Amino acid sequence: MNHKHVNAICRATRGILTNHFGVEATPKNPSAGSGNIPSNDVAVILGVKGELRGQIICSFSDRTAKKLVSIMMGGMEIHQLDQIGWSAVQEFGNWVAGNTATELSKEACIIDVTPPVVNEGNSTFRSAAPFITVPLTSQIGDIQVHISVKND
Amino acid sequence: MNHKHVNAICRATRGILTNHFGVEATPKNPSAGSGNIPSNDVAVILGVKGELRGQIICSFSDRTAKKLVSIMMGGMEIHQLDQIGWSAVQEFGNWVAGNTATELSKEACIIDVTPPVVNEGNSTFRSAAPFITVPLTSQIGDIQVHISVKND
Repeated sequence: MNHKHVNAICRATRGILTNHFGVEATPKNPSAGSGNIPSNDVAVILGVKGELRGQIICSFSDRTAKKLVSIMMGGMEIHQLDQIGWSAVQEFGNWVAGNTATELSKEACIIDVTPPVVNEGNSTFRSAAPFITVPLTSQIGDIQVHISVKND
Repeated sequence: MNHKHVNAICRATRGILTNHFGVEATPKNPSAGSGNIPSNDVAVILGVKGELRGQIICSFSDRTAKKLVSIMMGGMEIHQLDQIGWSAVQEFGNWVAGNTATELSKEACIIDVTPPVVNEGNSTFRSAAPFITVPLTSQIGDIQVHISVKND
């Protein structure tokens, strides 16, 4: 994977956290894996098409999901994610998708991102393709950005 | 959702089962849902882009996954899915993706499908978009085809 693309994708998620949520996120050391990704409690799955093909998966804890939704709802405390809460998580995915396309276009890479699927629960994503995982730490918890893209 | 698109997508999965696996699959009554989809044991997630946007998720039991992989491996009995087995499940997803694009093109609908993500374990997919679920019954078990697509 091209490091410029990986950096652009991470920048996209960080940018959403900073600009839409007012949350500073710090990237930690990335790790490379063989394609088995734990879903954590909540995972947002984005499909990538265009000059790159593959997936971006943002995963985080239930606690972080509630904090994200709380901020989206103007600070209202969230005890449990209901249908509106899950829609908000999906909307977070839409923002990441849009910003990812923008950040990659700055690297002269034109892609399009599918609408997000949100996965709730503990499962494992399996893929023959290699993944790079970049953990972002923030005051609302860790967000793992898993990236598996290759040139089409 | 346009019923011609739903039918074409189901035809694609049935076609793969018949032509690649020699398995006759019979569609049962479809159901419409609000967007909460159980993952079963194994789910193959495909993102759709182009004239339609959305997702197709094929989900089935662990037992059915092993039978699919067994047929792909020339009839070898599969006791547990290993890395090669999971790659085979992903390859099944690639076949469904390719055939879905072909079947939809016959309805004058040009789409492209992202590489599949395979989900292992019991989790729930959450989406604000409505889904239509078509169960296919066959001698290797049931395969649920969940379809959520809309015009771009």
